[in-house]
This record gives sequence, structure tokens and C-alpha cells, in this order.
Amino acid sequence: MQLKDMFNDIEPDLHKVDSFLINCLEKTSDRLQKGYIHLLKAGGKRIRPAFTLLAARYGSEDIEKVIPMASAFELVHMASLVHDDVIDHSELRRGEPTIRTVFGNNFSLHLGNYLFAKALQIIDEYNNTSLNNLLACASMEMCRGELEQIAAAYNYKQSLRQYFYRIKRKTSLLITLSCQAGAIAAKAEPGVVRILGRYGHNIGMAFQITDDVLDYIADEKTLGKPVGSDIQQGIVTLPLIYVLNYGEEHVRRRLLDILEKKSFTREDIAQMTKLIETTEAIPFSLGIANKYVEKALKQLELLPENNTTCTLRQIAKFIYHRQY
Amino acid sequence: MQLKDMFNDIEPDLHKVDSFLINCLEKTSDRLQKGYIHLLKAGGKRIRPAFTLLAARYGSEDIEKVIPMASAFELVHMASLVHDDVIDHSELRRGEPTIRTVFGNNFSLHLGNYLFAKALQIIDEYNNTSLNNLLACASMEMCRGELEQIAAAYNYKQSLRQYFYRIKRKTSLLITLSCQAGAIAAKAEPGVVRILGRYGHNIGMAFQITDDVLDYIADEKTLGKPVGSDIQQGIVTLPLIYVLNYGEEHVRRRLLDILEKKSFTREDIAQMTKLIETTEAIPFSLGIANKYVEKALKQLELLPENNTTCTLRQIAKFIYHRQY
Repeated sequence: MQLKDMFNDIEPDLHKVDSFLINCLEKTSDRLQKGYIHLLKAGGKRIRPAFTLLAARYGSEDIEKVIPMASAFELVHMASLVHDDVIDHSELRRGEPTIRTVFGNNFSLHLGNYLFAKALQIIDEYNNTSLNNLLACASMEMCRGELEQIAAAYNYKQSLRQYFYRIKRKTSLLITLSCQAGAIAAKAEPGVVRILGRYGHNIGMAFQITDDVLDYIADEKTLGKPVGSDIQQGIVTLPLIYVLNYGEEHVRRRLLDILEKKSFTREDIAQMTKLIETTEAIPFSLGIANKYVEKALKQLELLPENNTTCTLRQIAKFIYHRQY
Repeated sequence: MQLKDMFNDIEPDLHKVDSFLINCLEKTSDRLQKGYIHLLKAGGKRIRPAFTLLAARYGSEDIEKVIPMASAFELVHMASLVHDDVIDHSELRRGEPTIRTVFGNNFSLHLGNYLFAKALQIIDEYNNTSLNNLLACASMEMCRGELEQIAAAYNYKQSLRQYFYRIKRKTSLLITLSCQAGAIAAKAEPGVVRILGRYGHNIGMAFQITDDVLDYIADEKTLGKPVGSDIQQGIVTLPLIYVLNYGEEHVRRRLLDILEKKSFTREDIAQMTKLIETTEAIPFSLGIANKYVEKALKQLELLPENNTTCTLRQIAKFIYHRQY
């Protein structure tokens, strides 16, 4: 079972998003076009457009009108991925060479800016300034989350609270906004927009926590990147924070001994993940992810019971059980 | 005489822009605040806000209402400077260490994104979707210009047309928009908005051309960066394009011999600038800048004759004579 199987119901609409994305850059220069096509081919799970399309079903507007909006959120997400690769010096993403590997850092920085501006232009067409404002505020917060992550790198004295602050901005905000924007674009009731926003927030939090757990325990092949890549980059996530705050003294000391090095061999990473697995860190983290899933499910109870609500419920449950 | 002396007339309003800029980030985290203050202190010529404020005088709205808009254009400009420094690996800007030197590339990338999002948020408050759309389109074009510049680096077979395409996007577009937005925010007539837009375009083109000329002939101290820094980075500008297309054979050959190296010593740069100065390249380039200045002055004839029109005229004339 994969996440995309959850989207069977909106598959034809997601295809329309793909077509929109392919066509929306057609008049640009060669090199820009090539970089963009490379990005599109690397393919994403189209999670954000999927949420926009699903949320739109609670409104009265024809779904055709929501396709550009859904595509815009994929563009915002793509822009952030391109910039992330520059920052992380990533060579691979989902097993494929990143844009910066093929086209260079400079190109990637401007391509990211371009994609964000393109998304803005698409959203502007809806003539809805509250939507514009939601996006501007979310973008600022997303940057703030990234800046916090830079400041918190290699800092092993972090609280759970700092972690939640970061992942809310890093991941959950854009999913929240994808849900809200779909509902707004389809002219759903303000109450429904709020419920879908809260659903998105909880799903986003659960999604990032499971992502962070998978970085410790997943199979390298299905993950498409080396296990322990967060720790390698000094990114301190929930399992590690748990152990460093609540783990047994001897485990903590052994971990800190390795962490002191700052640059880690494969051996170091393997040793650390093993140490973490001897503790309650993984079940604790998954427990928190599950709490967010339950909160998301609770929001769904406030919506009319129909196929879409059923799909949103399946997605929530899937997030918890996903393996990559 | 300095450019800022041109702005005497709007000095009190520019101070309000400075206060707005200082206060608009006050609730953010420590590190973000520090980076932002560092940027503000490095100080700019506040050219874009000045144009916004001047253009606003052709409308009926109180100038107070235009202060946030004028500030937003300085933020957009600052965002692009921070990203440029990342790309150029610049150590210094206006004689001060750049943000990336002090805070690192990662921080700079996100700070740039943050400042742009902040500008968006400010502009959104005007509830004018046509303004949003102008900014989104201009941003896309600006990125395209940058991408073209990357593609054109170290390419010594460029046409004048390619150069003008690039500098329009790189510099002139944001000045055009600063003028238009000031007039729009102050509710000026659509005809006046168009005239001011055309004035801004021509001023922007003249400004970038003189900037490119100064990179060859200015005094290093007043320039605040090494002479010949464009050529050092493979950025091919008007004087060089002129010589390579229309210069005498023996000068062209000697230039190309040095250019072949791709990495240049101070000696190489000095030799190339000297070679270029033996040709008509500098007067030719300044002649083109002057044509743009004349076009800008022509637009001003279509506006009512008053103090503001007089200031805009002085600015146009100054751009041509500026020494840094």
C-alpha cells in the first residue's frame, strides 16, 4: 500500500494537475524549461495538490477551477525542495540526481525563486486577497522554521517544544494551507475551511514525525537516501531529542560521546541508530504521531460523512503506518 | 553631488520608510533580527522607495498610506541582494561584510526568502490584486533574467540584444514597478501610472548601463568593490560586448587571448580594462545610457510641471553623470 493509492478517488484530477504543471512553463527559455522538466520527472507524491483537491470537494465550485490552485501548491513545494537541496548540498533526491547536481547551485536558487513567483501569479488570478495573505504569512513562517533549524543544528540540548515549533513551520503549515485554499477556492463554508485547516495541521505534524522516525529505522532503498541523514546534517529530531532528554544515563552518555565528533562515519550512524533503538524513543515518537492522527480524525467527525471524508480518514490512518 | 541629494525633497518620507523597515521585523527571533539589522545598517541608497514616494505624489492619496508600499520595494531589493551575495560568493558589499560572510549561505538563502514573503504580506494589505499580479510577474521575469545571466556567463559571443534583455529584467523591472506601484497606491490616473512606468524603465536601463561602465572605469574606493568584478565573474556587459562585436581586430584578439583563461589575475583585469579604454566602448555605452535618459525625460514632458517632475528630471540627469 502506498500513499498514492489513497488518492485513487481523485486520480483524474491529479492528472489534470500534472498537465497544468507541464504546460504552465511552456513559453520559457530552454535552460529553465529543462531544469523544470527534470524536477517534474523526479516526480513527487503530489500530496499538497491532493489535499487541495479533496478539500475543494466540500465547496460548491466546479473542481476545474481548483486545478490551478492545487498546482500552485506543488510549485511552492517544489521551490522549497530546490532550495533545500542547495542548502543540504544534496546529490540525490528520491534516487535521482538533484537539480543542483545537474544545473548548479546558482541555477537552483533562481529556479526556486521563479517557481515561487509562478505559484504567486497563479494564486493571484483567484482575486482573493485573503488567500494571498495566507500564503505570504505561511511563507514567512516557513522561512522562520528553516532559520530556526539552522540555528538549532548540532544543538543537543533541545526541548520537545522547539522541535514541534520547527516541524509545524517546516511541513505542517503548507499542508494546512493546501487544505484551506482548496476549500476557499471551491467556496466552502468558513467553518468547513477551519476544520479542514485543523485536519491539515495535524496530518502535517504526524507526517513529519513519521518522516523523522523513518530516517532512523527505514530501509535505505525504500527511503531513497541514506539512513541517518538528518543526524549527519546536525538536524536533531524527535527520537534523538527524546533519548537526550529522557533516556537512561548510560545510553545518553554513549550517544553524546559520538555526537561530539560532529562529522560521523557510517559506523557512527549505525551505532547511534542502534543505541536509539534500544530505548523507547521510536515507540514514543510514533505515539505522538498517532496522537496527531487521532486529532485529525476527530476533526473529520465534524464534516459530513461522504466518500471524501472517508478518503481523508484513510490518509490519516495511512500516514501512521507508512514505511517511507 | 550624490544620488541621495536628489531626494532632499522626500527626505522626511524616506525617514518614515527607514522607521517602517526597522520596526517591521521586531517580533521575530534573535538571529533573524540580527541578520536583518546587519542588512539595514549596511544601508542602501533607498532608490526604489524614493521612486515609489515620488510617483505617489501624482495621486490623491495621503503619502502616509504609501510608506509600507515603498518599504516593501526596499525589502524585495534587499532579498535579491542577499541571494546575489550567496551566488557571487561575495565577501563585501558597499565595503561591509555581506550577510553570507557573517551568517552563512544557508541563513542568507532563507533570509532572502523571508524578506520577499514579508514584502508580499505588506503589499497584500493594499487589497489590490493587480498590484500583486504586477509583482508576481516582475519576480518571474527577474528570475528569468538571472537565469539568463548564468547561462550567458563566460560567453563572449553575445549580442547587444541579449544584454538589454538581461538588464531589463535584472534592474529595470523593479524600478518600473516601484514607480507604478507608488502611483497606483496613491490612486493616480491609469495614464499617469503608465507614464511613470515608462520613466522608471528608461531610468532603470540607464542606471544599469552606467553601473556596468563604472565597473570598468570607477575608482575602487568609491565603488566599494574591486574594479572589473563583473568580468572576473564571467558577467559580460555592454563595454566588452561592444568591443567584441565592433572593436578593431587586434584589440579583439588580444582581449580574447586573456579571456580564454577564465580565471584572471589583477594584472589580467587591469590589462583588459586598459584595452577596452583604448576603444570607443565606454563613450558608446554612455551614449546608450544617455539615450535612455533622454527617453525618460521625454516621458516627464507628459506629466504636469511641478516640484516632483523637477526632481524626477534631476534624477534622470544625475544617473548619467554619477560616479559610483
